[in-house]
Amino acid sequence: MRAVVMHAPGDVRVEDVKPPEIVEPTDAVIRVTAACVCGSDLWPYRGVEEVNGPTRMGHEYIGVVERIGAGVRDIEVGDFVVGSFVASDNTCEICRAGYQSRCVHQVMMGAIGTQAEYARVPLADGTLVKVPGEPTPEQARGLLAASDVLGTGWFAAVAAQAGPGRTVAVVGDGAVGLLGVLAARHLGAERVIAMSRHADRQALARRFGATDIVEERGEEGVARIKELTGGYGAHSTIEAVGTQESMQQAIGATRPGGHVGYVGVAHGVELDGLELFFATVNLLGGPAPVRRFLPELVDLIMADRIDPGAVFDLTLPLEEAAEGYRAMDERRATKVLLTL
Amino acid sequence: MRAVVMHAPGDVRVEDVKPPEIVEPTDAVIRVTAACVCGSDLWPYRGVEEVNGPTRMGHEYIGVVERIGAGVRDIEVGDFVVGSFVASDNTCEICRAGYQSRCVHQVMMGAIGTQAEYARVPLADGTLVKVPGEPTPEQARGLLAASDVLGTGWFAAVAAQAGPGRTVAVVGDGAVGLLGVLAARHLGAERVIAMSRHADRQALARRFGATDIVEERGEEGVARIKELTGGYGAHSTIEAVGTQESMQQAIGATRPGGHVGYVGVAHGVELDGLELFFATVNLLGGPAPVRRFLPELVDLIMADRIDPGAVFDLTLPLEEAAEGYRAMDERRATKVLLTL
Repeated sequence: MRAVVMHAPGDVRVEDVKPPEIVEPTDAVIRVTAACVCGSDLWPYRGVEEVNGPTRMGHEYIGVVERIGAGVRDIEVGDFVVGSFVASDNTCEICRAGYQSRCVHQVMMGAIGTQAEYARVPLADGTLVKVPGEPTPEQARGLLAASDVLGTGWFAAVAAQAGPGRTVAVVGDGAVGLLGVLAARHLGAERVIAMSRHADRQALARRFGATDIVEERGEEGVARIKELTGGYGAHSTIEAVGTQESMQQAIGATRPGGHVGYVGVAHGVELDGLELFFATVNLLGGPAPVRRFLPELVDLIMADRIDPGAVFDLTLPLEEAAEGYRAMDERRATKVLLTL
Repeated sequence: MRAVVMHAPGDVRVEDVKPPEIVEPTDAVIRVTAACVCGSDLWPYRGVEEVNGPTRMGHEYIGVVERIGAGVRDIEVGDFVVGSFVASDNTCEICRAGYQSRCVHQVMMGAIGTQAEYARVPLADGTLVKVPGEPTPEQARGLLAASDVLGTGWFAAVAAQAGPGRTVAVVGDGAVGLLGVLAARHLGAERVIAMSRHADRQALARRFGATDIVEERGEEGVARIKELTGGYGAHSTIEAVGTQESMQQAIGATRPGGHVGYVGVAHGVELDGLELFFATVNLLGGPAPVRRFLPELVDLIMADRIDPGAVFDLTLPLEEAAEGYRAMDERRATKVLLTL
């Protein structure tokens, strides 16, 4: 089968690889109907994370179940499914508490690679959510977003306790930040301040419900958020970048007692203990437990109540994945969908 | 009047100083009936924090109102009162959200110094809580504890979301950690694991409701907590020390999705962003908003439902404050009460 393989920073190819098989009885194999390129795929692409030899890529997916292991009970061949970027049993105490991304049996889908014609999904019953009915093309795009960027933005908004009466600041205007805006508004936030200096992303932020745009960054950005919130700072802040500057901006923009939901994978971030102490904010972040939110997100998408698929601004066939990576790296695209 | 003054690390004296006056119309002046030495007073005593010339000490207090400013409405001369180590207006948005320690008008009582015969209390209406009736000596000790160490341990337990069905780990066996044990049990925690290697403190931890004691520290301590919690880690962890090791121990001992309440004033703590990301724990800490809890704590103490005063294991007259500091520095005492 055909699959995306990264050979070195900047060197992405589509190659013939061995198709996946059922390894564990709890596995399923799905025929991927769409995959995408993630902001986090850019870390190795840009050489910020090491690439140790040819590496299969991709961790977002929707598709149709082709085969199941003998131990799979709830998922059936032919089901149209969506799953998170972390496979999870959904039965351990951590999963049951809603932190499936840290399941004691977790398997990172990125280690499997879903930018491919087929993918093995471990712990299929725990990981996959069946989509009722036949999604329209637009719904399918939304479901693919739910697999990571929407679920991650949603978690960030929930972790930041976005809700009625709250002012939410969003640091980062990538797909996750933009969908954090959508999530915050859906959760009832009164005011959502998107921090962005790109006109196209500002427009999408507004479409998703942003009420204010702040173009300033760093200390100036923090000062502007305080100015917009009576000097107090935001109640809730979504951090969707993962750099030292973005984390400091997020913490600084949040009022004492407020909540920061951080989902940008940290790169070179060091938090000073004393600064954090006196910030007195609630911090919650990490790999998003997307599985917690998937059933609700699938329902919202299939009822056309949210349109997260709008983050995909470039669609390419899998064979042109290299161009997809380039477009995202050069910020010509926010989020690239790969068709199969 | 007589007051404690620190001249240099290790050099604590009791001297004649000018008695306080009403400065702002919202001030009160109280006659201090008891004060105490705080674990945080040991940071400058040990030279970890700089001492810039003679410095008034103390931020915990109970006493009787002597004088009030023209703008004080709720507090009256003659009231027996207790207040937090941070003066707060209790009306701004931050206070109303329960974060009075970060009030927009906050005044640190440590900058005033309550190890003295009299003390000025800014924002008296917001800061002070009137004690109903006449406290017994034991109740008075409890009220003094409420002023900081009990209120701080309480906040840590609330921040860690200690409650029914939860296993709570407590890092630090000083007064705050021990009272964190008391708070966690009072809040309904099923199991409270005190991390301590001192027999006397272990005994007090058990008296306050600890169900388990762990003597190991660092990675071994984390491993032991995991062993005691089915491999998952504690639901809730109280951090009451403020060092790199204690923070890492607290975060490491907590399961993904669990809560860390940290109240040890951070000294030399740096948190690695990526480790924190993958820990996926809720972090909340800072100077405790003791004022939020004071009304409830006063009620519990005056009804003899909790006995936090038991943390005071050495009582000295104010004149012997230097010996009090020495005893705490040498860990001969957990918490020193100064009588006036």
